[in-house]
Amino acid sequence: MAEILKGKPVADAMIARMRETADALKANGTEPTLCVVRVGERDDDLSYEKGVIKRCEQVGVTLRQLILPESVAQAEFEQAFSAVNADPAVHGILLFRPLPKHLDAERIRAMLDPKKDVDGWTDGSLAGVYANQKTGFAPCTAQAVMELLKFYGVDPKGKRAVVIGRSLVIGRPVSMLLMHANATVTTCHTRTVDVPALARQADILVCAAGVMKSVTEDFTNPDQIVVDVGIHWDEEKGGLSGDVDFDRVAPCVKAITPVPGGVGGITTCVLLDHVLAAAAN
Amino acid sequence: MAEILKGKPVADAMIARMRETADALKANGTEPTLCVVRVGERDDDLSYEKGVIKRCEQVGVTLRQLILPESVAQAEFEQAFSAVNADPAVHGILLFRPLPKHLDAERIRAMLDPKKDVDGWTDGSLAGVYANQKTGFAPCTAQAVMELLKFYGVDPKGKRAVVIGRSLVIGRPVSMLLMHANATVTTCHTRTVDVPALARQADILVCAAGVMKSVTEDFTNPDQIVVDVGIHWDEEKGGLSGDVDFDRVAPCVKAITPVPGGVGGITTCVLLDHVLAAAAN
Repeated sequence: MAEILKGKPVADAMIARMRETADALKANGTEPTLCVVRVGERDDDLSYEKGVIKRCEQVGVTLRQLILPESVAQAEFEQAFSAVNADPAVHGILLFRPLPKHLDAERIRAMLDPKKDVDGWTDGSLAGVYANQKTGFAPCTAQAVMELLKFYGVDPKGKRAVVIGRSLVIGRPVSMLLMHANATVTTCHTRTVDVPALARQADILVCAAGVMKSVTEDFTNPDQIVVDVGIHWDEEKGGLSGDVDFDRVAPCVKAITPVPGGVGGITTCVLLDHVLAAAAN
Repeated sequence: MAEILKGKPVADAMIARMRETADALKANGTEPTLCVVRVGERDDDLSYEKGVIKRCEQVGVTLRQLILPESVAQAEFEQAFSAVNADPAVHGILLFRPLPKHLDAERIRAMLDPKKDVDGWTDGSLAGVYANQKTGFAPCTAQAVMELLKFYGVDPKGKRAVVIGRSLVIGRPVSMLLMHANATVTTCHTRTVDVPALARQADILVCAAGVMKSVTEDFTNPDQIVVDVGIHWDEEKGGLSGDVDFDRVAPCVKAITPVPGGVGGITTCVLLDHVLAAAAN
């Protein structure tokens, strides 16, 4: 049976470290502040926001909320958003996406100050994660995978990594971060022929396809470390499941992250780590 | 013996197409214009500049040159560069790199208008090639590889591609462009364990390690298409050689680009294609 790589010890260690950083900033007169921008009342957003609020309390980061109605007009949104974007007391901005379809997300993305882009959405952040340069921030979940590997002593250097998924929020950035950490990375996607055969070659398998329980024992080898980034409501189980069919995969690999209780809880820690970094600059 | 994928027919087809585009722009009152910015007299730069001048004549793009002495001061450089950067009559800027060490290349990179960044150097261009969005331009040599594949009817979709090299000018962008074209891409680099074993899995092998004749028959399979991006002076041969040991590899694969006469000549065509696109906007 595989070693279970839980997220909680990773998050706890990050929180302890971040609390010290937050205290030091405050001692120097800087109140690290995150502003959450939410349009409407989507369940996903509310649930993530709840997690962020809890983490802010744990770390000692001030939370502001800009909440706008689902029907908000573009001009109205931009006016409210500009104020937050320009406010020197706000160090990081988390804008829940996708935005309602009537809003022009590209215009808003271009407005966002890359220095406050703690969730890795602007061109500055995209260029940063691709070029391994210090502009903007990596998407939080992608970096959460790296924090988990680091905590459990997994050095990607020289390892084969296979990432299933090529989205801009997780598949592509985690591929880049693993490559910057000197792994040899193969990124699989919907057009890949025979994903299981490729996955079996992986020392580190990152599952971010967004399809529940799509990764089975057929994707594995006994020395493999499996990181599951998926989060899905599993009707049959009456709870959350990941992209990995845990019960089938866990007996076949060296180590695996559970869902829930794996990468998910680290994501909000990374978010606050970005806020602290933004506040320190 | 492999099919030899020469660059000249690709370049010729591009030139014919681009000449029509340039004529159409001129008929509409736009004189498509590239400005080459060169500091000092490095042989590499002069040789590439010569190729660019020839291509501009062939296509009907106006060429300007901003030539500054090796010893130019930062302030002096910035003043001259700003003028070109702000001039609405200049659509594209090609700045030869690396710049002399006393110049702050990062400051200059931040100055460059992404809309004129026809060689893919700015954050806008980096974000564009990574996110597959229309900001800036891809580095010319990376896109030249794609033009060559397209010309010879090689559709990357569903294919395994292995790229040797992860530089920002070729390895990384060509990996992204191949992925956007739906190949499954593995990017190898100096920390990769057993590059030949991975390369043998490739349907498309792009060699951009920057080490002369480092790719041998051990990296190949009989159905493979090999694209050689390297250009090196080969003392023994008294001419140019690529990253691929052509004489050993050509008999073992399905198709291969020669050096010289392969990707090299397409690069300047892509550059002018970018200038025309910038002029049309």
